[in-house]
Amino acid sequence: MNIELIAIGDEVLYGMVVNSNAAFISQALFEAGFVVSRHSTVGDDPVALRKALHAALLRKSCVITTGGLGPTCDDHTRVALAEIFNVPLKHNSEVHAYIKSIFGNTKCIDNQATVPVGAEILSNPLGTASGLYLRNETLYPESFLIALPGVPSEMKEMVKTQLIPYLNAKLPVGKRLFVLPLHFMKLCEVDVDHHLHEIEKEFPEINCGIYPGMGVLSVHLKAMAQDEEEFLQIVQTAKDKLSDKFRVHLFDSPSGRLDEAVHLYFLEKKISFALAESCTGGSLAGRFCAYSGASSYFKGSIVAYANEVKKALLHVSEKTLESKGAVSIEVTEEMAKNVAKAMSARCSVAVSGILGPTGGTDDKPVGTICASIYLEGHPLHSWQMKFTGNREIILEKTIQNILAELLTFLFKNVAN
Amino acid sequence: MNIELIAIGDEVLYGMVVNSNAAFISQALFEAGFVVSRHSTVGDDPVALRKALHAALLRKSCVITTGGLGPTCDDHTRVALAEIFNVPLKHNSEVHAYIKSIFGNTKCIDNQATVPVGAEILSNPLGTASGLYLRNETLYPESFLIALPGVPSEMKEMVKTQLIPYLNAKLPVGKRLFVLPLHFMKLCEVDVDHHLHEIEKEFPEINCGIYPGMGVLSVHLKAMAQDEEEFLQIVQTAKDKLSDKFRVHLFDSPSGRLDEAVHLYFLEKKISFALAESCTGGSLAGRFCAYSGASSYFKGSIVAYANEVKKALLHVSEKTLESKGAVSIEVTEEMAKNVAKAMSARCSVAVSGILGPTGGTDDKPVGTICASIYLEGHPLHSWQMKFTGNREIILEKTIQNILAELLTFLFKNVAN
Repeated sequence: MNIELIAIGDEVLYGMVVNSNAAFISQALFEAGFVVSRHSTVGDDPVALRKALHAALLRKSCVITTGGLGPTCDDHTRVALAEIFNVPLKHNSEVHAYIKSIFGNTKCIDNQATVPVGAEILSNPLGTASGLYLRNETLYPESFLIALPGVPSEMKEMVKTQLIPYLNAKLPVGKRLFVLPLHFMKLCEVDVDHHLHEIEKEFPEINCGIYPGMGVLSVHLKAMAQDEEEFLQIVQTAKDKLSDKFRVHLFDSPSGRLDEAVHLYFLEKKISFALAESCTGGSLAGRFCAYSGASSYFKGSIVAYANEVKKALLHVSEKTLESKGAVSIEVTEEMAKNVAKAMSARCSVAVSGILGPTGGTDDKPVGTICASIYLEGHPLHSWQMKFTGNREIILEKTIQNILAELLTFLFKNVAN
Repeated sequence: MNIELIAIGDEVLYGMVVNSNAAFISQALFEAGFVVSRHSTVGDDPVALRKALHAALLRKSCVITTGGLGPTCDDHTRVALAEIFNVPLKHNSEVHAYIKSIFGNTKCIDNQATVPVGAEILSNPLGTASGLYLRNETLYPESFLIALPGVPSEMKEMVKTQLIPYLNAKLPVGKRLFVLPLHFMKLCEVDVDHHLHEIEKEFPEINCGIYPGMGVLSVHLKAMAQDEEEFLQIVQTAKDKLSDKFRVHLFDSPSGRLDEAVHLYFLEKKISFALAESCTGGSLAGRFCAYSGASSYFKGSIVAYANEVKKALLHVSEKTLESKGAVSIEVTEEMAKNVAKAMSARCSVAVSGILGPTGGTDDKPVGTICASIYLEGHPLHSWQMKFTGNREIILEKTIQNILAELLTFLFKNVAN
């Protein structure tokens, strides 16, 4: 049986709101063993809504809708459902009593307690819009529909406490799809692709996916299995082959993000860390501080955007600045050493560069970035990068490159 | 003619990636006068992909796909398009030459230069996946399709420079929808809602929308018009009424973002600016440095995450730290004054707080934030905030609140 999600609302269709509900439900269902086969979004237009519902129900589906269950003029879902399932709408005294027990006699209670006759009710403890389960064996013998509210907090609660138990009871489960994600830094799709082709040839039950992100390449090994144990047995050899092949590129973090991997590394190794940032302007520090617990290793950052600040607070020598320029390895080395000293940090990173679109020269065009890593007891490690793209892209490439270089450097130089 | 968006990719379908591409394209098209009628997402499954494409093309549509144009094993879009439009795939030497001119002889070039015969090419300056325009007058006489890459940076660039001009040329336009956005800070929906009802009553040709974002409330005045001039005449009086009513809340920035409004203000007024950040950990500085030209006023930030750094680099007195705690107005006042002095800045902001989930006390629970604004020749302006939510939400609320407070303070205290 297919599972299809239909989001209902002009605000999603016009792009004012990103449809994160679909991602949430898909992921929650995926983790529970159900694979969604399609997402759709339609606006607050009764005709388009009925057409989309009808088409999805004809595809032998469990259809899950979000949105349009509210009490205002642009909420059409309950009316559309009554029409599609060919039942009248009627005031339901149990729903009325439930809403009243939580929200009192709100203005919208009569409206919100009016539901398609025969619908099973999925109660919503956080809002007045009840969830609905509908089925019509004659019209759609192999399908059913569950309608959920579109407000993310209400929907999320109901997915966990109602939708998933409901699906577990309604849908036959046998083998289901499992996924093992592997995350690599400093790799391109083409580096990995032919290895995946080989894996798919050697292990026909494994299906591979490649997902390149900014700075990270994620590979998914997918297979149908009865349970996690069986799945891990199926993918074990393929996983080991890939991990061995790309050992130095592999990293581990729950989110698959490099900043999280570096954060977890510092946390585990108890290495105090500081930053001296010019062109990244505080964004690099922000990546670490986004994670709870950063305060146990992260000392701070001196964002020295102006050259006077590089001199006054990072003690970069006037001579170096003048002879080599602010974007030079000589300057980032002084920045890295001096910020580590100023903040008593065992490790530090310094970065200086030209994000553009202005400020480039023939010698140092836009996208030229220098960086240095300081680690107590080790020689400084410095390198230059050259990136293309707009300001936002060059900034993100810079951050990702530094995180990858730093993690590689730490893997190499810190004892396990 | 309908406009339908189809996102292609397991990572979207399984919820690992939120389909923000659909929101971006819908909004960009909306601003250009085109209204999208449906979004769909299908996985990397050739059968499901062909079915979805075929169904959409039968609905008299301009179909815009994103994703699946890469060179690897899970990219099926070009093959599916060739089948659906009943044309062979063939190596295209012009596409080859274009990719080579930008990316050199990359490994994937032969694969990426193989496109459906007869497709018009929409060139992609940021990646190897070209966009494609396809039409088959016999099979789908009233439809056409445009395929775009799924990588957001590439897709965004192509929407602006290629898709919208293309649609302007291909789709008949008469009267179309125009939108005038007005951005307000420190306002809630309920403050504005009844004024918008009045506007809709007084000017029946105007339709209003309210879109609350983090820290910003945007109001859209929408009307059908032949051209921009006619539209501006229609909305002029309504716009003036709203602007006058909420004068102190109104701000101006092309993106509708508060950080951009503050950036433009500093740029225009030539006021040098510095930051002292504790809990925001560099993110606030990053908001300014995201904009080109920030170097002309932005000196830098001292990210003093650790208390030793607050003492050593921001010269916050041990006594204040001990008696008042790091999260106190007394501390942020010292931070603001001292960072302005250290960086020779005319204006500065300091912030210290508890983002959580740990670190809260009975006295100062998670979400307690203190901030101070220093402006040369003026008394310090300090305030305390209390926010709820998770770490990420509290951080964003803090940043938006500080930006709004700073802009309001500057409006009041800097001569026009």
